[in-house]
Amino acid sequence: MNEKACWFCSVIDDLRYNKIYQTPSGEVIRKICELPAAFAILDNDQYYPGYTLVVAKTHATELYYLPENESTQFCQDMLRVAKAIAAVFQPQKMNYELLGNTVAHLHWHLFPRYEWDPNPRRPIWEHSHDRKLLSVKEYTDAIAAIQRVL
Amino acid sequence: MNEKACWFCSVIDDLRYNKIYQTPSGEVIRKICELPAAFAILDNDQYYPGYTLVVAKTHATELYYLPENESTQFCQDMLRVAKAIAAVFQPQKMNYELLGNTVAHLHWHLFPRYEWDPNPRRPIWEHSHDRKLLSVKEYTDAIAAIQRVL
Repeated sequence: MNEKACWFCSVIDDLRYNKIYQTPSGEVIRKICELPAAFAILDNDQYYPGYTLVVAKTHATELYYLPENESTQFCQDMLRVAKAIAAVFQPQKMNYELLGNTVAHLHWHLFPRYEWDPNPRRPIWEHSHDRKLLSVKEYTDAIAAIQRVL
Repeated sequence: MNEKACWFCSVIDDLRYNKIYQTPSGEVIRKICELPAAFAILDNDQYYPGYTLVVAKTHATELYYLPENESTQFCQDMLRVAKAIAAVFQPQKMNYELLGNTVAHLHWHLFPRYEWDPNPRRPIWEHSHDRKLLSVKEYTDAIAAIQRVL
């Protein structure tokens, strides 16, 4: 996949100027903030409250393809967001995952983990779940809460 | 869990001075290298060839509990190892995961992903597999190959 065909490139090109991006299929993507090397997006699936993506500004498929100062900044951006999510949602653990098996544009998955979750000692992928969607107000409130502590 | 009861603290205390650590249950843990903020360990399960752990020297349960210079170094150490694994094993993708749900001492899982693997577009956790153990010579050769390009 190249930059032109990359789903995340389309999203972040738009989020530079807008708080939300509407995909061709009608899904709304919500920006938390712009950071030096990334955009933070509150995932629509809030089964794990606070689940957030931190998407690199530069199209690259691996961390080691970024210039060193940029990979460092991308990790620092992710950490700043993780800390803010933890402050707001008070999980018992955070899972930080940079996968890109489906869409190979660098993006962190930040999964806050909770005592109540179905399999807290194992990766979230071992337990499938139905997406939990929120109301517009709930998304807006969650984003505002994260922004306040960033 | 505190530092004294932490499995990874026991392992890295020993790997400071030794190439291998034998657990009380008899399992051998093999050091690839010591880095400024971490030790790299070739996991015994080589189902995904090159699967490596990068374990923080400091006992901390979250990235945001480390001092900022140390979390940055820990990420840079991980990246250096990921790049070396990629050079040796030539995967089609790398998965970088910092979980700690079972043993909450910061450690990266570096999973090289291959075209032949059973579910290359999804996280490895969605497909269970039997551990693939190697001969002592195979472990030694893999470690030497990674060390040469670090």
